Amino acid sequence: MSELANRVAAILGRVRAEKPLIHHITNLVVMNDTANVTLHVGALPVMAHAAEEVAEMVTLAGALVLNPGTLTADWVTSMLIAGRQANARSIPVILDPVGAGATTLRTQTNLRLLDELQIAVLRGNSGEIGALSGAGGVVKGVESVEGVRDPLAVARGLARERNLVVAITGPRDIIADGERAVAVDNGHPWLATLTGTGCMATTMVAAFAAVERDYLLATAGALAAFGLAAELAAAQSHGPASFKVALFDHLYHLTPEQLAAGARITAL
Amino acid sequence: MSELANRVAAILGRVRAEKPLIHHITNLVVMNDTANVTLHVGALPVMAHAAEEVAEMVTLAGALVLNPGTLTADWVTSMLIAGRQANARSIPVILDPVGAGATTLRTQTNLRLLDELQIAVLRGNSGEIGALSGAGGVVKGVESVEGVRDPLAVARGLARERNLVVAITGPRDIIADGERAVAVDNGHPWLATLTGTGCMATTMVAAFAAVERDYLLATAGALAAFGLAAELAAAQSHGPASFKVALFDHLYHLTPEQLAAGARITAL
Amino acid sequence: MSELANRVAAILGRVRAEKPLIHHITNLVVMNDTANVTLHVGALPVMAHAAEEVAEMVTLAGALVLNPGTLTADWVTSMLIAGRQANARSIPVILDPVGAGATTLRTQTNLRLLDELQIAVLRGNSGEIGALSGAGGVVKGVESVEGVRDPLAVARGLARERNLVVAITGPRDIIADGERAVAVDNGHPWLATLTGTGCMATTMVAAFAAVERDYLLATAGALAAFGLAAELAAAQSHGPASFKVALFDHLYHLTPEQLAAGARITAL
Repeated sequence: MSELANRVAAILGRVRAEKPLIHHITNLVVMNDTANVTLHVGALPVMAHAAEEVAEMVTLAGALVLNPGTLTADWVTSMLIAGRQANARSIPVILDPVGAGATTLRTQTNLRLLDELQIAVLRGNSGEIGALSGAGGVVKGVESVEGVRDPLAVARGLARERNLVVAITGPRDIIADGERAVAVDNGHPWLATLTGTGCMATTMVAAFAAVERDYLLATAGALAAFGLAAELAAAQSHGPASFKVALFDHLYHLTPEQLAAGARITAL
Repeated sequence: MSELANRVAAILGRVRAEKPLIHHITNLVVMNDTANVTLHVGALPVMAHAAEEVAEMVTLAGALVLNPGTLTADWVTSMLIAGRQANARSIPVILDPVGAGATTLRTQTNLRLLDELQIAVLRGNSGEIGALSGAGGVVKGVESVEGVRDPLAVARGLARERNLVVAITGPRDIIADGERAVAVDNGHPWLATLTGTGCMATTMVAAFAAVERDYLLATAGALAAFGLAAELAAAQSHGPASFKVALFDHLYHLTPEQLAAGARITAL
Repeated sequence: MSELANRVAAILGRVRAEKPLIHHITNLVVMNDTANVTLHVGALPVMAHAAEEVAEMVTLAGALVLNPGTLTADWVTSMLIAGRQANARSIPVILDPVGAGATTLRTQTNLRLLDELQIAVLRGNSGEIGALSGAGGVVKGVESVEGVRDPLAVARGLARERNLVVAITGPRDIIADGERAVAVDNGHPWLATLTGTGCMATTMVAAFAAVERDYLLATAGALAAFGLAAELAAAQSHGPASFKVALFDHLYHLTPEQLAAGARITAL
């Protein structure tokens, strides 16, 4: 057990004790799954995207997830309204730039969210972060089919430029802020066979960031917890769908003690 | 076996025999689940929210579910159009006031639906019903974090004032119309670990109300059936996701005989 | 093993090797399921419906799915934009006319898509295809409650009139183009107990059509593969929800060899 593992285990305990509300403005594909992940990790989900209510809703929340995976103009408007209110109240905003790089609309919308809001954590796959940082990478639909060459350098550079935490997730997750960087080696190949696991990871980050102001540590803990649940689930899975069931069950039962023992987080 | 249990068991038999269409205008999070619950209990689901078609669609239906859990203005417009048509044809309208009390928009929209439509059954958690009745309660996102003090008095009062059936669901479900009241004690704590179980319960109510004009009895039967399926499922579950699979499987197989034997409905 | 079975097995192999992007503009109920089906069969899903991006997104795709199951005007506009671009680039467009026949809006919208776009494959249930061909049939919500009398004649007639492949799915699937026709006898009654299995079948067709220009063969192969996975899953299922888990698991593991041995495709 590393010191980092012990610290992130304590964050999981706080999520379960404090039950923060996680306000999602997210895509239509994963809403049910991310609501369940929020509940299973110990927080409370709400999905709300009406321009008339998002500013009021977010004031109740511990964190705001912005995920423009099935974006249209009115949803982006609501993301900006909610994001500004979250910024005004120091509520962390977590951005999942689904499909950035695949179309002009997706790239520009995510850049606009980064420009107009103070994002706390940006979590994407290698192609998406590449598209937003100008470092290359190819995104086909919502999948990274070609990543950036040096994820650590890209994450660090973007983190410094934008003053936020950047997480590039994949077999090894790389997380950086302007000064520090860590790698998380939890996870399982089954995660890549299911839709929305990136979005679920983002929801985990939001739950952890809602109770821990060191967002690099919160992000590392969230990704370690999600990856560890995947490892535990894999042993009981026969394919992607039974894996999903086991993943959610294990996420629900995951204890701080298990996380302290199983988190594989390395300072870089 | 109580007489009430026998009567609600017969309703389940009629749902399976008559296969009523249940028209949902519901939230984006639970659509897949509530469509499946509709099918598994023996009815036919349709999700349709275009203003151009809802009046026509609802004329085919045995019941209409209005669930503004991810409301926007255009969806509310469609709810009103469909609801008026349902009222004109004496098709029961079931309202699930998701998140009433959490934001002004949610509270006012649900009050407007109650004002402008004749709702047959209003089913919510204790905080939501508290917000709509003025009896207190606190809702955080879509969760009741503080309920009303006297659910029976609140349900009875609101039922009389609005001339409808009110169901406040929780570990003990309280159901009242202007004159009668019953409690349903079926259910399982796993239900609270899954998103959308309230919405699923509302769908069950709609299926039962589509074939039984005594809406208090229909509501009691629907909640008993849903709770009984949860009890049967719990024995085979390792966590919330395997519980969900088992819940849906048991709902599909639930027989009127099982419901007659297992429904725990008490006149109050 | 028939020659047809061997040929469709080879298509499955190409889906897994080429991983085509399948662009869906589809309904809100099934998005998560069809995204997962796309991944499990070996292709890449994207769900994108903003008018500003669909023309760009579809140029990356191997096939486009149009499924107006929860249609509104803006979504139909995006379907037309994406469809025209797909036509211009010879990317096959697969249409799933969910609920055609149930309301005027649904019937007219699907006829408009058929009129204004060159559809490669139209896949629906018997009532839906009946409504679009003028051959009768009754649709209640999204369910065919009365089919056409002679599915083969109806499919052949509509295929000739519209110059496309028509698939009428049910216990026996009938597939026709202007000259040929085949039947597929794979499948299992559990499929009718789950919402969205028609939409999942359409997604399978899109994945196969993305890599095989003989769309009749592609459609037969896709429906045989989906039905075979259902047969394999049924043995391990206790109800509709455990069946769904097993169906997705088996779809993921299905090999061309299994499909060659298990596909039951008959030339008519």
